[in-house]
Amino acid sequence: MATKVGIPKGTRDFSSEELSKRHYIFDTIKKSFINYGFQPIETPTFENNETLMGKYGEEGDRLIFKILNSGDFFDKIDETHINKNNAKGLATKITEKALRYDLTVPFARYVVQHQSELVFPFKRYQIQPVWRADRPQKGRFREFYQCDADVVGSNSLLQEIELVQLYDDVFTKLGLKNTIIKINNRKILSGIAEIIDAKDKLIDFTVALDKLDKIGEEKVKEEMIQKGISEESIKKIQPLFNFTGSNQDKITKLVFMLSASADGIKGIEELNTIINKIEKLGLSSSQLTIDVTLARGLNYYTGSIFEVSAAGVELGAIGGGGRYDDLTGIFGLKNMSGVGISFGLDRIYMVLEQLNLFPETLTAAPKVLILNDTDNLDKALNLLKELRANDISAELYPDLAKMDKQFKYAERKGIPLVVKSILDNGQVVYKNLFTGEQKEISDDEFFKIFN
Amino acid sequence: MATKVGIPKGTRDFSSEELSKRHYIFDTIKKSFINYGFQPIETPTFENNETLMGKYGEEGDRLIFKILNSGDFFDKIDETHINKNNAKGLATKITEKALRYDLTVPFARYVVQHQSELVFPFKRYQIQPVWRADRPQKGRFREFYQCDADVVGSNSLLQEIELVQLYDDVFTKLGLKNTIIKINNRKILSGIAEIIDAKDKLIDFTVALDKLDKIGEEKVKEEMIQKGISEESIKKIQPLFNFTGSNQDKITKLVFMLSASADGIKGIEELNTIINKIEKLGLSSSQLTIDVTLARGLNYYTGSIFEVSAAGVELGAIGGGGRYDDLTGIFGLKNMSGVGISFGLDRIYMVLEQLNLFPETLTAAPKVLILNDTDNLDKALNLLKELRANDISAELYPDLAKMDKQFKYAERKGIPLVVKSILDNGQVVYKNLFTGEQKEISDDEFFKIFN
Repeated sequence: MATKVGIPKGTRDFSSEELSKRHYIFDTIKKSFINYGFQPIETPTFENNETLMGKYGEEGDRLIFKILNSGDFFDKIDETHINKNNAKGLATKITEKALRYDLTVPFARYVVQHQSELVFPFKRYQIQPVWRADRPQKGRFREFYQCDADVVGSNSLLQEIELVQLYDDVFTKLGLKNTIIKINNRKILSGIAEIIDAKDKLIDFTVALDKLDKIGEEKVKEEMIQKGISEESIKKIQPLFNFTGSNQDKITKLVFMLSASADGIKGIEELNTIINKIEKLGLSSSQLTIDVTLARGLNYYTGSIFEVSAAGVELGAIGGGGRYDDLTGIFGLKNMSGVGISFGLDRIYMVLEQLNLFPETLTAAPKVLILNDTDNLDKALNLLKELRANDISAELYPDLAKMDKQFKYAERKGIPLVVKSILDNGQVVYKNLFTGEQKEISDDEFFKIFN
Repeated sequence: MATKVGIPKGTRDFSSEELSKRHYIFDTIKKSFINYGFQPIETPTFENNETLMGKYGEEGDRLIFKILNSGDFFDKIDETHINKNNAKGLATKITEKALRYDLTVPFARYVVQHQSELVFPFKRYQIQPVWRADRPQKGRFREFYQCDADVVGSNSLLQEIELVQLYDDVFTKLGLKNTIIKINNRKILSGIAEIIDAKDKLIDFTVALDKLDKIGEEKVKEEMIQKGISEESIKKIQPLFNFTGSNQDKITKLVFMLSASADGIKGIEELNTIINKIEKLGLSSSQLTIDVTLARGLNYYTGSIFEVSAAGVELGAIGGGGRYDDLTGIFGLKNMSGVGISFGLDRIYMVLEQLNLFPETLTAAPKVLILNDTDNLDKALNLLKELRANDISAELYPDLAKMDKQFKYAERKGIPLVVKSILDNGQVVYKNLFTGEQKEISDDEFFKIFN
């Protein structure tokens, strides 16, 4: 009996056409990473459980795919623990490895493990798949790629400035215009919390403020009061309810508002340095804009916070990142500030598809098909060899099939040029399936087509 | 307490230097795959258990990494089955997905699942990691890459001819000389088994014959007799004990020896066609040679069998493959002959390393480091931007560190050019760390260095 065919939910097969597009994005990102001085590393698909567990919160732990130990996985486990109601307790005993959940924790592990070989500040990029046992839905998969660039071992704000340029560089090269790079600073958020005397309510606060555009000032304030933020506090941050204008206007408003918070002022200074330098340097097609509602995993970042969204497409973030002051602390290496950004491949793919921005020339199809007939086999094999030696991708139809069938094969595969025959005097008779044009030329001339 | 750092046994971290070398091999193989008309596909890291289990024999099943079901994995299992002695029975009940074990079975699944979208003959290449719970040892890992090119849906021997050329192409480009491409045919092996009246002893026979070089004719014959092959039978295949000379000599010997076996003669015809065409076309640096002891997974291949080894390096096969007549039959699609070859990345890496064949220019290091001092920040940022816009990878040292430290950084990272300062008149003062040369030139001239 034949095995049922299918793949696990949340995973995907990729055809040549899809891979051409995916690699176009990967290659663009990679090229910019390299131009910006980032060097690649790769880490194993699975890590030891203790490397990953407890690093992503309780929800994260649950979503990590664990690999069942080989052989007798009950071997060293006490019999009394092996029962139907103890699946949860057994999960980490009968597994010792788990699939990578993101690229940041393995990177931190890598830095600590290889610290003696690395040159700091260490700039690495990493483009590899990660796995999460999330409920699959449109645009969310159980296997997907992350593309990360991080610097570890430098507190310099030049890193942030470069990362903004890097975002701009990649999205400009991909043809995306007016990409919005939102920036915030964790210290500004702390400053706001200090001012409104509600350090424990910072998340409630940013969540409510984020709704300003949708539900209006009054409703936002109602929500804040409901969450226990006093009216008096809300008055102190009144400027945030009309937080428009240029980045410089926003900085000015923040200075007035947060002057009483040392943390807040430090955050504004950082933001100001980045904004000013970027203004001087100029961006090619993106806009850097201050967004004080931006929080992204508040417990993680300690300085700058970034999030990128494409203009004119409702798809959520296509990138994000920020600074985290103690990345490697969890693995025992203290005082290593890190800052990094990530590109969301699948979202970027959807945006480019939607805006029709993939180059038309992307193809995985060979350039030439040589038809197979009784006469020409040796001549065909020689031409084929020559073409390939000149890096022109080419195929010979493998069987003596009807010409019709051979032409169909070229058409369906999207092969542009079909060699119909090779004459005794060396002339090549070919047809361009895209233009319909048919020609008979010398093989020298034929090769020139591809230059 | 800090988490212990380390990675699971049999897995590897890859540094930038290692990745430069690995990508050099991948890119070379990929380029040839594309020139030969193969198109990429990718399949998920994990497949459903039923796709993989039972496809690699009992040993294979044992070596497949299984992924523990998320949540309450005991949920639908009868309580009586959950006990310390039933790990083996539970393994396939508490898991439903498993890591890819090779690229061939997922490829067969892919072909069957997507048959309506594919154009046959379908030529695909696939370069992805696979996982095996093998005991790790020198050169054998639990996570490693396979690089496969297969054609499915064509019986034509032209495929075999192209695959031999493809091997030659890749190894020539990698600088390997005198690579030996061994070829055999399963039908010849069947013919031999028929002649010696020992179909069930074919493996014993080839294993014994393979030792000819090491232990000599008499000892090999002794072993064969021990294995139950009669002296009379051994007489019939006496030519195999002096199986030298050109491929044509070997073909002649085989014809005489196997004339009574229809299967054997068919195999010789196939071999002869391939050998003749390759002789006419010529190989760039490899040698195609008939090896009748070549068996490689006897139950799998049905026609041609290939194995490649590097000259002058004792490392075993660096590639292998062959024709299998019913690849997709296990998934319900009959009569689809397939033929393919595989490149062993890790072995090729070791060979190139040993023979010192990696290009010296391989590097992941940026080309330029701009030193950071109080005066030059804005000028430095502008030069940096220009360099990157011209696809010249460059870094600015992020902190105002001592010059000594900044130079050390460039040296340790292998960055060749260090920009010491940018003068007010735009002149660039740089030092080439490889040659020691120091110069002051216009920025136009500076950019020309990289052309």
